[in-house]
Amino acid sequence: MSHSLATHPDRLLPADPGTRSIARSLLERVQDLPIISPHGHVDAAVIEQNTPFPDPAALLVTPDHYVTRLIHASGVPLAQLQPGAGARNIWRSFCEAWPLFDGTASGYWLRTQFESVFGWQGELSAETAEASFDAISAKLAEPGFRPRELFKDFNIEVLATTDDPLDSLDSHRALAADPSFHGRVVPTFRPDAYINIAHPAWTPNVERLIAEASDGGSGYQGYLTALANRRRYFVDHGAVSADHGVRTPATLKLDQAEAEALFNKARSGQATSLDRDVFEAHMMYQMARMSVEDGLVMTIHPGSFRNHHQPTFEAFGADTGHDIPVATNYTEAVRPLLQDFGTAKDFHLVLFTLDETVFSRELAPLAGFYPSVYIGAPWWFLDAPDAMLRFRSAVTETAGFSRSSGFIDDTRAFCSIPARHDASRRIEASFLARLVAEHRISEDRAHELIVDVVDSSPRRVFKL
Amino acid sequence: MSHSLATHPDRLLPADPGTRSIARSLLERVQDLPIISPHGHVDAAVIEQNTPFPDPAALLVTPDHYVTRLIHASGVPLAQLQPGAGARNIWRSFCEAWPLFDGTASGYWLRTQFESVFGWQGELSAETAEASFDAISAKLAEPGFRPRELFKDFNIEVLATTDDPLDSLDSHRALAADPSFHGRVVPTFRPDAYINIAHPAWTPNVERLIAEASDGGSGYQGYLTALANRRRYFVDHGAVSADHGVRTPATLKLDQAEAEALFNKARSGQATSLDRDVFEAHMMYQMARMSVEDGLVMTIHPGSFRNHHQPTFEAFGADTGHDIPVATNYTEAVRPLLQDFGTAKDFHLVLFTLDETVFSRELAPLAGFYPSVYIGAPWWFLDAPDAMLRFRSAVTETAGFSRSSGFIDDTRAFCSIPARHDASRRIEASFLARLVAEHRISEDRAHELIVDVVDSSPRRVFKL
Amino acid sequence: MSHSLATHPDRLLPADPGTRSIARSLLERVQDLPIISPHGHVDAAVIEQNTPFPDPAALLVTPDHYVTRLIHASGVPLAQLQPGAGARNIWRSFCEAWPLFDGTASGYWLRTQFESVFGWQGELSAETAEASFDAISAKLAEPGFRPRELFKDFNIEVLATTDDPLDSLDSHRALAADPSFHGRVVPTFRPDAYINIAHPAWTPNVERLIAEASDGGSGYQGYLTALANRRRYFVDHGAVSADHGVRTPATLKLDQAEAEALFNKARSGQATSLDRDVFEAHMMYQMARMSVEDGLVMTIHPGSFRNHHQPTFEAFGADTGHDIPVATNYTEAVRPLLQDFGTAKDFHLVLFTLDETVFSRELAPLAGFYPSVYIGAPWWFLDAPDAMLRFRSAVTETAGFSRSSGFIDDTRAFCSIPARHDASRRIEASFLARLVAEHRISEDRAHELIVDVVDSSPRRVFKL
Repeated sequence: MSHSLATHPDRLLPADPGTRSIARSLLERVQDLPIISPHGHVDAAVIEQNTPFPDPAALLVTPDHYVTRLIHASGVPLAQLQPGAGARNIWRSFCEAWPLFDGTASGYWLRTQFESVFGWQGELSAETAEASFDAISAKLAEPGFRPRELFKDFNIEVLATTDDPLDSLDSHRALAADPSFHGRVVPTFRPDAYINIAHPAWTPNVERLIAEASDGGSGYQGYLTALANRRRYFVDHGAVSADHGVRTPATLKLDQAEAEALFNKARSGQATSLDRDVFEAHMMYQMARMSVEDGLVMTIHPGSFRNHHQPTFEAFGADTGHDIPVATNYTEAVRPLLQDFGTAKDFHLVLFTLDETVFSRELAPLAGFYPSVYIGAPWWFLDAPDAMLRFRSAVTETAGFSRSSGFIDDTRAFCSIPARHDASRRIEASFLARLVAEHRISEDRAHELIVDVVDSSPRRVFKL
Repeated sequence: MSHSLATHPDRLLPADPGTRSIARSLLERVQDLPIISPHGHVDAAVIEQNTPFPDPAALLVTPDHYVTRLIHASGVPLAQLQPGAGARNIWRSFCEAWPLFDGTASGYWLRTQFESVFGWQGELSAETAEASFDAISAKLAEPGFRPRELFKDFNIEVLATTDDPLDSLDSHRALAADPSFHGRVVPTFRPDAYINIAHPAWTPNVERLIAEASDGGSGYQGYLTALANRRRYFVDHGAVSADHGVRTPATLKLDQAEAEALFNKARSGQATSLDRDVFEAHMMYQMARMSVEDGLVMTIHPGSFRNHHQPTFEAFGADTGHDIPVATNYTEAVRPLLQDFGTAKDFHLVLFTLDETVFSRELAPLAGFYPSVYIGAPWWFLDAPDAMLRFRSAVTETAGFSRSSGFIDDTRAFCSIPARHDASRRIEASFLARLVAEHRISEDRAHELIVDVVDSSPRRVFKL
Repeated sequence: MSHSLATHPDRLLPADPGTRSIARSLLERVQDLPIISPHGHVDAAVIEQNTPFPDPAALLVTPDHYVTRLIHASGVPLAQLQPGAGARNIWRSFCEAWPLFDGTASGYWLRTQFESVFGWQGELSAETAEASFDAISAKLAEPGFRPRELFKDFNIEVLATTDDPLDSLDSHRALAADPSFHGRVVPTFRPDAYINIAHPAWTPNVERLIAEASDGGSGYQGYLTALANRRRYFVDHGAVSADHGVRTPATLKLDQAEAEALFNKARSGQATSLDRDVFEAHMMYQMARMSVEDGLVMTIHPGSFRNHHQPTFEAFGADTGHDIPVATNYTEAVRPLLQDFGTAKDFHLVLFTLDETVFSRELAPLAGFYPSVYIGAPWWFLDAPDAMLRFRSAVTETAGFSRSSGFIDDTRAFCSIPARHDASRRIEASFLARLVAEHRISEDRAHELIVDVVDSSPRRVFKL
């Protein structure tokens, strides 16, 4: 029987027949488990309002900077991939660029979606641009293709969104209160734009934050109170984690007076670049302190040079495909935080990286000692089959299977969620199958472990 | 049927029988394609004058610092490997050290040459030193073993040399004008010794450059004019690229007055170490600007600490085996250049590295966004089978197959060129075969991709 | 026939049947060779006095920070793993945590010990805690389980200990003089606490050193004399190497006056943090100079941030599981030393790393040129199956097989020594088998090479 790539039962499994057969059996064990997605960027309102998805280009191309970046690299100006360029034009550009995605993680997820979600089995090319656009558009118009129906079809149990600290969380509340909706959509507290002084909206953000949530306090103390209050509000609306996108994982404990002085200097627009770094490092310490108090899992996503190409940023804004990783060092950076909170009761700190060298050198050793530290799953450029296998190989021999976070899809592309989790499960099965084939763990134990890494780990680490 | 290692049809192919069989079929698709060598160090005069190759030691040992370095590490003083030491003595030292080359890339290329080029099938050892020397010498004396005949036998279509900016390019011109020569030998503009103030000959070089090519200009402006003129001269003589060997990939845009001041300071011998770094970074920016104007592909080879062992440098000069890589960071370093030229029309910038960590962390993300950026193939210590596989695994999931340069042999060892390209093709076949075996790409598509990476990529990236 | 994991003849061998069969035959070649252990932390007195091993917890859990760290990460306070906590309580904590060790190197060594040394074949769990404790305790009480008997059973030929420069080496002398003991137990000179000014005992150590060994000298010169004398004392008692645990591999040559001034400043308690770094770097240079004179192999183990969690250090002391690696750079750091001693006759310098990126980028290139430099085997967090394979893949293509140190168990866990060496041999067989399967070396040559890497390399590199 012949299979397409996207539906081949052995896709991503190791080529060696003996190992593959073990992997198949491990995969079977978890293939039907519900999806736990503890970190991502889907908009809760889309699910709450069950908004029909727009056309194929607006769903699959324009908002996905993984996709537009590679089309751009092939020579297509970003302007031709903006909403204003016309859905069919954008789709055609995408179809023409489709061969460039061979071998990429994005290509794998897209191909799987086309076939498994939208029923499109042909290749994409200039020739099939119209037909594929029409076919997917027709599917999108069907009632079964609305977000809530797909949420159920995709077998999603938990989906975390990422939210502004001042967000009302109305959609989350409405979903939680809706007896007809059976999933769990939880917010995530993401205060970067209130913490990073370099953020263009930091000053107005902080003013709004203090005005709305400081219980009448002012200045630095009011700021801390407001952050704590909003975190509490998130907890009350189901949040399980607070996420931090920072340039470096630096942490620092300032005394109250120092922190206050920096805060005031920043509000008067006088902060230097060093002041910003110091304040951000200090606020990571404060966020950890609050996590110890309110129980929100703390996740850190460092190491990206945001908006690398200034002209593109000026023309098209942030998140347009030119955030580029830099070398990251955790050992000394995270030490001040861990000195005080590394063994704090029930504190969970999940450390992500875009610099793979950190996995074996720093994250596995840290997570193998500190009860609070968990190794963040491969993320962004690294949540791809080979990279995920390298990750497991890099961390397991030091930290075992119990110290990592479980898969994070981190996506705003709702329809790619099943493909991403499926790929991750296949890679976990592949890695464990190799350990079984090499007589390093028993097959029975591997069957337990794959359930643990796919299902129990994210529940345990994210307190779900 | 029994095969020697060097001629085994499955050499370097993956052990898994299913994957190997796919790899074999992919390899067949490209095995007879001509060699495209867009960056290397063969001397054009050798081909133009069709100079017979000297003895085996002078051909295969003394000029190849990959080879002499490992013999030196085994305890043989470099003096015993210098031309003056006697060809047979050198050859004997090499033969005695031959077992040390097992598992190395150099050993693989040498073994392949011995058997496929020189017809020597035995092992090398003290016992066979005389016989192998004689056998190879005899071959070298045959008329079919002169450079032009081998150029044709090796099926080389394009061979780029690396040349001084003031080189007359007479040999290139003569070859181009010679109707009896059917290959294409193109020069490469390599201005390091005119840009790096720390180069011992920088001052006289710059004086000569301005005197010969500035159209009467002087000072910094004359210097820039002369560089632009010589680049144009290279373009007129078939050059397709300008190559830059730098310690770090730093780039910087100085204003005219700052650059001029630094230039004058350097000419008066007053430049500090920091001045040199700043000027070099600025000149990388200028070289990019000129590449945008004249179309030369810009290639950057950073990250080597040159002449690490000062006593060896003093006794034997540069390129004697003790250039040692250092950690490299591209993301912030190359940003000033990319701000202005990253999306410039038809600009090609190929970024190489000796620090493998940069492949997945920085080069694949950069090349996956900027239309100008291409990922340089694994180079120097990294153009070896396992390292090349690690490279493909590191970059493909982010950048696909279209954003890398294609193989670069970078060699001065003319007779090793077929072995190097053959090894590269086998590794490309192996990598693609695994993706097919894992159902990540179709076998048909892999057949297209292997032609693309082996043949179309270097043509496209180097504008051949 | 069914095998347990710990005794499966194919454990750790590659899954591909063809490659596995080659690996099996290579492994057979070395499986019965004696153990050469040129660097480790077993106490010589334990062997000399043939002290019976204590209970299972005190033997296998409390002193092994590889083991306690992961139990601690699971939430068990270190206080519950201290000797005072009660052997059976500690053992129960360990048994409960046992599943966390799946996939780790420690788990592999422990499992192998339980079965091959102690004859315990069941799994460990809360349920089997009592039974396993009793079973292992019973074995430990048998006369055949005393250190000297196990030394023989384990087929250890050479075991190096790690010793304080002022150690009397009485146990070593007694063992050497004992006609009934047939092994070789050699001391290793480890002067960190006399060189690193930041060490809390540096001042009294230096005073004691000068008082006891300076031949009446004083000050910096007396210090150097005393170090040289104690090194000589170690040589006279069989030492073959001097080992250096440093934060970075920095080396530096100060002139006499500068060094003396720093030394005096430190003794008066005035040294800054920079002074300490400079002095340590200078002393690495001095240690190399002395190694050139007295022939002790110099080994450097850098790159660990010691005692990362201050509260744990204060409560439980050093070596309690929170030494965390940091990024390491060798190329520039080790240059001052290599300038003067890199080609010195019979000087051996073995460079270790906890930062894997250094293997291909720096260590293989350095060892592939300098006759003095050898690549240290994967160490600490890296002496695990996958990490050892990555190591071989990273260094071999540049440096071949002759430039690495051979396996180092670096352990204080005497009973784990056979399991560690066995794992290493299996990985060497696996790597070589792949090269054979890929037709990169002949099977005959692989049989020579595996003996070389397992047996000849450590003898040659450590002058045994």
